[in-house]
Amino acid sequence: MSEIKDTIRTIPNFPIDGIMFRDVTTLYSNPNAMKEVVNLTANFWENEGLTCVAGIEARGFVTGSLIANYLSLPFIPIRKKGKLPHQTISQDYDLEYGKATLEIHIDALNKSDNVLIVDDLIATGGTAIASVELIKRLEANVQGCSFIIDLPELGGRKKLENIGIKVQTLCAFEGH
Amino acid sequence: MSEIKDTIRTIPNFPIDGIMFRDVTTLYSNPNAMKEVVNLTANFWENEGLTCVAGIEARGFVTGSLIANYLSLPFIPIRKKGKLPHQTISQDYDLEYGKATLEIHIDALNKSDNVLIVDDLIATGGTAIASVELIKRLEANVQGCSFIIDLPELGGRKKLENIGIKVQTLCAFEGH
Repeated sequence: MSEIKDTIRTIPNFPIDGIMFRDVTTLYSNPNAMKEVVNLTANFWENEGLTCVAGIEARGFVTGSLIANYLSLPFIPIRKKGKLPHQTISQDYDLEYGKATLEIHIDALNKSDNVLIVDDLIATGGTAIASVELIKRLEANVQGCSFIIDLPELGGRKKLENIGIKVQTLCAFEGH
Repeated sequence: MSEIKDTIRTIPNFPIDGIMFRDVTTLYSNPNAMKEVVNLTANFWENEGLTCVAGIEARGFVTGSLIANYLSLPFIPIRKKGKLPHQTISQDYDLEYGKATLEIHIDALNKSDNVLIVDDLIATGGTAIASVELIKRLEANVQGCSFIIDLPELGGRKKLENIGIKVQTLCAFEGH
């Protein structure tokens, strides 16, 4: 656990003043720590009857695809507006700094699916909750959410748990 | 090879009229075909002395991270403007439809690195050549480029080969 956290770099004042940005690119460049992320995540969820892994653009694509591949499951991309070429449903949400829209292909999931949502970080939870909504609107089940980093002071993890979503995080940082 | 191509869906008139968009999300949802992509790519490059794999945002993150993980190498993200939190260098380029800027962290690579660039598709080559430039500006060596899909009529592969870059593609589609 601590090895993963130790590989994450903090960049002060990005993208705006006062934010301590947790930079996972230094984790991505450490193959052993990345294998640890995949192993810890796959082991945590392997008896949960997952049928697929959904990754949130863009950093959720990195770990989401690795976890899907490790578990031999389909990888489902949740993307920013206008990026998915087939018919989509979309969901607006508030970011920690701004507003945005996420989309998923309408034929990406169905009611027999048990989905693990993967992203790098849970902050206020806006992105994750929008992803939960997209998956529920396709009548699939959200089995849980997995993040490398928790920012507990921002409350996103609690918001997810309050709507009945199981959450795994691999490390936590104080502050924003 | 044909199994991979067969999993790719074509969406007519996306993102603009007249474009036949090759949709890899249907490949992503096929775990066996994804393992085939990773195996074919890793086997092709395994004796080339790679020190890391760079993936181009966003679809290059999916296969790039898988190939890096398989080869136990660092994964280096090449991102759109404004996304990387640490100090970057940037490179403008022309897209098949539009203009954009790519960035890489200045400390992501050094002159001892042999880099494989990964993306889902090579069309006109603008994105790939911008990525080659970024890597060369960090004094690292571009060992080659690997793409799932070649669109040979758009000439990107030839442009890369003309500047001395070795290219692997796993399947090809006629037309745009």
